[in-house]
Amino acid sequence: MQTRLGRQTVQLEQPAVILAHAAVGGKQEGEGPLAQYFDHLSDDSFFGEKTWEKAESAMQKLALSKALEKAVLSPEDLDYILAGDLLNQCIGTSFGLRDFGIPFYGLYGACSTMGESMALGAMLISGGFARKVGAMTSSHFCTAERQYRMPVPYGSQRTPTAQWTATASGCVVLGAEGAGPRITAVTCGKIVDKGITDANNMGAAMAPAAYDTLSAHFAATGTGPQDYDLVLTGDLGVLGHQIVADLFAQDGVDMGEKYRDCGMLLYDIRKQDMHAGASGCGCSASVLCGYLLREMEEKKWNKILFAPTGALLSPTSSFQGESIPSICHALTIENL
Amino acid sequence: MQTRLGRQTVQLEQPAVILAHAAVGGKQEGEGPLAQYFDHLSDDSFFGEKTWEKAESAMQKLALSKALEKAVLSPEDLDYILAGDLLNQCIGTSFGLRDFGIPFYGLYGACSTMGESMALGAMLISGGFARKVGAMTSSHFCTAERQYRMPVPYGSQRTPTAQWTATASGCVVLGAEGAGPRITAVTCGKIVDKGITDANNMGAAMAPAAYDTLSAHFAATGTGPQDYDLVLTGDLGVLGHQIVADLFAQDGVDMGEKYRDCGMLLYDIRKQDMHAGASGCGCSASVLCGYLLREMEEKKWNKILFAPTGALLSPTSSFQGESIPSICHALTIENL
Repeated sequence: MQTRLGRQTVQLEQPAVILAHAAVGGKQEGEGPLAQYFDHLSDDSFFGEKTWEKAESAMQKLALSKALEKAVLSPEDLDYILAGDLLNQCIGTSFGLRDFGIPFYGLYGACSTMGESMALGAMLISGGFARKVGAMTSSHFCTAERQYRMPVPYGSQRTPTAQWTATASGCVVLGAEGAGPRITAVTCGKIVDKGITDANNMGAAMAPAAYDTLSAHFAATGTGPQDYDLVLTGDLGVLGHQIVADLFAQDGVDMGEKYRDCGMLLYDIRKQDMHAGASGCGCSASVLCGYLLREMEEKKWNKILFAPTGALLSPTSSFQGESIPSICHALTIENL
Repeated sequence: MQTRLGRQTVQLEQPAVILAHAAVGGKQEGEGPLAQYFDHLSDDSFFGEKTWEKAESAMQKLALSKALEKAVLSPEDLDYILAGDLLNQCIGTSFGLRDFGIPFYGLYGACSTMGESMALGAMLISGGFARKVGAMTSSHFCTAERQYRMPVPYGSQRTPTAQWTATASGCVVLGAEGAGPRITAVTCGKIVDKGITDANNMGAAMAPAAYDTLSAHFAATGTGPQDYDLVLTGDLGVLGHQIVADLFAQDGVDMGEKYRDCGMLLYDIRKQDMHAGASGCGCSASVLCGYLLREMEEKKWNKILFAPTGALLSPTSSFQGESIPSICHALTIENL
């Protein structure tokens, strides 16, 4: 049986092993400090396709194919794949996965999707429901801009708090046994909405959700930031990262230098003029599936807390004057 | 441990109990043959709100509140809720659930969402990851029309193959123990796309996915249509239902009178002028959470196979000339 630690957190008695991981990125990602950790980088924002939406599907195909290749597995070896993306009706995923023939559970967790897919995937494995599971997500700057903001050719001015949606995809293959970092605990987030209405300040909207989930995870597991080699939020950017640190400081908890945000790692924010940093499902997914997991395999870190965040708004909800509900899911990933 | 029956199907050694269920509907649903089975019906398509999107969230709030009330539980008693809807970024769900404070896994399975949420919820319970889980979805005719087709006030002509998106929501509360029908097996669907491009003929697009998942379920469990009191697809409508029966007939399997489709049950199709029948996440959800589960409790049926279907397209994918990928998830629900 599983060890349930309170309402939101489960410690996995049979941890799920990350058998392989792959990260795919675009031009900006290839010009950033984590370029060397990507499995595939493309200068072509269309990834050889005719539309950006099809390009996003192509990225998911590439990420899954690379991860399977690295795990020396074929699509038939996966019992399930759990995935989703930011596009309306998650078409990046449905068209990306269409030809693989893998039983599929579709998710929508906005930019928290990598955390959600790995959490559910790890539980399916730990509970004996599956032997091998894929978990994946993606985002694309151009599909996100035209869906959420303005068509890219307009060249709209960006506010200082704006973040840059990553053109990237990340995929992991999880298994019940084998070598690799292990998912040992998962914390499911609640929807948190503190009334932020500025869709160009996602960091501020999502930070309270990150604080809520990290607090719940620390309390349930009896740990604090000092117990992890790294604590990583998803894509809060400079502003959201600071807000999370401030909220914990109010509780007397110093998040310290070990607390980082994937949105601050993916790009050289100043040199690449990325305003508050990176965002999008592909941000935390590619930082995890490239940089973080590779360095964990090199034992640079042995225990990390990965907590991607998602903003659950839509253009329609913003037009109707709604604030931005957010969510964050957290996973402990360890070298055991 | 669980009994995995092949790649897609799991027989739950610890079945999840459906502790309570609630169905909410609008005006057309209240004029249909299943009206008496709804827990709440509203003649106001706005459900007291200012926009149809907010109305859809209001329906989810009502369905969840009713289900909790019937289970004599409070939101704090649910360890997780799994839900999603058809709206861009699933805002029916995120705004509907925002104030409940329940740990949340967001799903996107289009009109298969009720099946997906119950399948994952049942596994989380069966695996010991949760004690009580909510599973829910919704759709709204007016939000779906303006998002997928035309603004309602245009009064666009509908094709004979078109279906009517149900204004409805369904919610179940699942538990590890207690009285109620039980989810004893789940089959996860694969994405199936046979090249149908007519977004006004969803039944034809989704029928091959239903056939694929039902075939897999029958093969894995060693059952056939004769072993169930009812076999129900989600919202294929008149045309899709016939296609599924035809596909099985080609295999020498007579689906017979026990095979029904929720899209043919919700409305009096001719009298209400519903063309090919009902569709939308709320169709199969409300038919299950109203009619089917109430009659199971009355022992009218003791073993049903519930297989909602989803079309994983978007207006953007259709504009780009893509065909319609579809999916179907199946669950065996039994009085034990």
